[in-house]
Amino acid sequence: MALIVQKYGGTSVGSPERIKAVARRVAKWRRHGHDVVLVVSAMSGETNRLIALAKEIQAQPDPRELDAIASTGEQVTIGLAAMALKELGVAARSYTGAQVRVVTDSAFTKARILEIDEARLRADLDAGIVPVVAGFQGIDELGNITTLGRGGSDTTGVAIAAALKADECQIFTDVDGVYTTDPRIEPDARRLRTVTFEEMLEMASLGSKVLQIRSVEFAGKYRVRLRVLSSLTDPEIPIDEEAQSGTLITFEEDENMEQAVISGIAFARDEAKVTVMGVPDRPGIAYAILGPVGDANIDVDMIIQNASVDGLTDFSFTVPRGDFARAMGILDSVKAHIGARAIVGDNKICKVSMVGVGMRSHVGIASTMFRCLAEEGINIQMISTSEIKISVVVDEKYMELAVRVLHKAFDLDQPIA
Amino acid sequence: MALIVQKYGGTSVGSPERIKAVARRVAKWRRHGHDVVLVVSAMSGETNRLIALAKEIQAQPDPRELDAIASTGEQVTIGLAAMALKELGVAARSYTGAQVRVVTDSAFTKARILEIDEARLRADLDAGIVPVVAGFQGIDELGNITTLGRGGSDTTGVAIAAALKADECQIFTDVDGVYTTDPRIEPDARRLRTVTFEEMLEMASLGSKVLQIRSVEFAGKYRVRLRVLSSLTDPEIPIDEEAQSGTLITFEEDENMEQAVISGIAFARDEAKVTVMGVPDRPGIAYAILGPVGDANIDVDMIIQNASVDGLTDFSFTVPRGDFARAMGILDSVKAHIGARAIVGDNKICKVSMVGVGMRSHVGIASTMFRCLAEEGINIQMISTSEIKISVVVDEKYMELAVRVLHKAFDLDQPIA
Repeated sequence: MALIVQKYGGTSVGSPERIKAVARRVAKWRRHGHDVVLVVSAMSGETNRLIALAKEIQAQPDPRELDAIASTGEQVTIGLAAMALKELGVAARSYTGAQVRVVTDSAFTKARILEIDEARLRADLDAGIVPVVAGFQGIDELGNITTLGRGGSDTTGVAIAAALKADECQIFTDVDGVYTTDPRIEPDARRLRTVTFEEMLEMASLGSKVLQIRSVEFAGKYRVRLRVLSSLTDPEIPIDEEAQSGTLITFEEDENMEQAVISGIAFARDEAKVTVMGVPDRPGIAYAILGPVGDANIDVDMIIQNASVDGLTDFSFTVPRGDFARAMGILDSVKAHIGARAIVGDNKICKVSMVGVGMRSHVGIASTMFRCLAEEGINIQMISTSEIKISVVVDEKYMELAVRVLHKAFDLDQPIA
Repeated sequence: MALIVQKYGGTSVGSPERIKAVARRVAKWRRHGHDVVLVVSAMSGETNRLIALAKEIQAQPDPRELDAIASTGEQVTIGLAAMALKELGVAARSYTGAQVRVVTDSAFTKARILEIDEARLRADLDAGIVPVVAGFQGIDELGNITTLGRGGSDTTGVAIAAALKADECQIFTDVDGVYTTDPRIEPDARRLRTVTFEEMLEMASLGSKVLQIRSVEFAGKYRVRLRVLSSLTDPEIPIDEEAQSGTLITFEEDENMEQAVISGIAFARDEAKVTVMGVPDRPGIAYAILGPVGDANIDVDMIIQNASVDGLTDFSFTVPRGDFARAMGILDSVKAHIGARAIVGDNKICKVSMVGVGMRSHVGIASTMFRCLAEEGINIQMISTSEIKISVVVDEKYMELAVRVLHKAFDLDQPIA
């Protein structure tokens, strides 16, 4: 008999009917003798409603107070879910982050979990009770209510699984797993039965919104076996079938030896490119350019600096498209100071990335990628690589085409042999 | 400079605009150098919305889980109110009942406050911060979230005022004080500048919904100076005027020596009368009759037993009208056991009460009351008296008439000389 942490997102608890379906699924696992901890998000739409209410009071809501408000969304769901379980005869008890003592730092609206007191949860499990825990929230050491930021419920689920040394953390969501790429773009996209943590990290940061990136980091750090699966199936489907469904996120070294070279193709729209042209190639120049951008709280993603010619170099980076105008303005204002010849930008770009741990040991991946794109007449504007990823920036109009061509070229539509 | 606890009810915080008005009023008191603790209810309608949601899951919601859910209403308001204060430059910080440590017993949905840890509130006040506290809620000694039941926010306000030994607890509501009777029935009803705790208790229990009865008991016990006043005035009205507005609830012995004989006329519709006729007048008969009614959780209000004739007596009591049919059914089932001749009932009655501490030392109040009613042809069905109250049960069709006649007869429309 296993100890399972099941986490359900906002859509999966979006109505009383959906909450009852969650309870039926949990009851099934209990019936088969498993211990279950249930972690739930706010009902879909609720967090946005609360934030909008706060903004009617303060355009820039005070972070401490915003957390006090936003955390109520999950608090409602835990009560409802515990009731739904009791209604089915399953012993259950709700806990806010504060009640469990999910201790976080004090970075309101984006707090990080420091430790979880598992004593109460353990006592409930020993007594045959299903603890129903509010995701997304915690309490700092001064007793202030904190939230983990968007998607933080995944992190709560994984952190609780780590604290309890659970056998598996199951993240139930409205997709049935991780795909080789977005099926809306490539209908032949295929669900991965397994993917490694490292691949998942690269996929998540590139826009595969299946799991919150921090929860994947957490799972990797504490070696939590993590599965993404669908809450849209019939709650009564056979438990053996459900236990094998979705996508299992594995530790590369342990499992997954039959891994394909490339696991998936990720992409990100909503990016923009900024190039600082003709700056003197001297120590400190990167900081002189990116310091003011960072000070303005603009995230910078890809950064590329070419070898210099005649002591001058070009420096490029990407920013979220929404921050493009602000980034250009900042650079125009420091242009003279850094001695740049020109600042140019383009907000009609996208990023396409191939991800796979198998890439490390296979030469030629990059050249195949570049050839395929060239054959379609797609110009590559920037290139960036990591151990298990190759990303290119191309004109956004080519995004779908690039994804499809690469998906086909690397046989991602074919089941792994 | 005084320490003031200000409590605002659901209507007073019913929208972002109303919350901003609350903040302006608090800011005014701060500007004049007063220390303020703000206690707020859930936005109007919110508690009902949450309870309805719970009932979609369980027809009889689990009390512990219902409290976890219902308490989120106030938690949202404290965050919003603290933001609104900060937006005006007033230092503020929100606290749930658990964060203050409003410790209650574990009677979910109707918990009683055991103690309040004033340390955090005191520290904030010393630092010039306005603590914004969630009314209606607390935490039991095991860390479970509790609620005090409907209207419990008033009790929170008074309890905090008691714990901090505040100079005054101001209950802001959508009426501007306590009236001699309901102005909707008697347009000449007059606002009382002062009323004693005992009178207020009698008025509250009789349907003057201005203050929750438990909060009045609490204020009496801990000698908290309590004022009911309007949140509908311009928040910027002169502070001296506001400080004298509304109705002050006083300790009889201390103040209020100019009190009129009668302070007000209360009334209750929605009552029903049950009479058990011809029961043997023997020890234990009252319990034999009322025991089964109490076991069914039916509140009994007035109880009258007449002197017996030939060893038989009649026993009457009133119950909420909604419980009338149930009470009749219970008595029919025990009729043979108690040896009653007949059970009769009437659910078209009402109760009219005259309340006043001055009544104690003035004879003739009751006879004047009975004469006035007789002159209008109003038959009195039951009479019950206490030290400061005379209540009569009459046909409900005479209710408004009885109230108006008595209001006039005791000169309640005239300012106190």
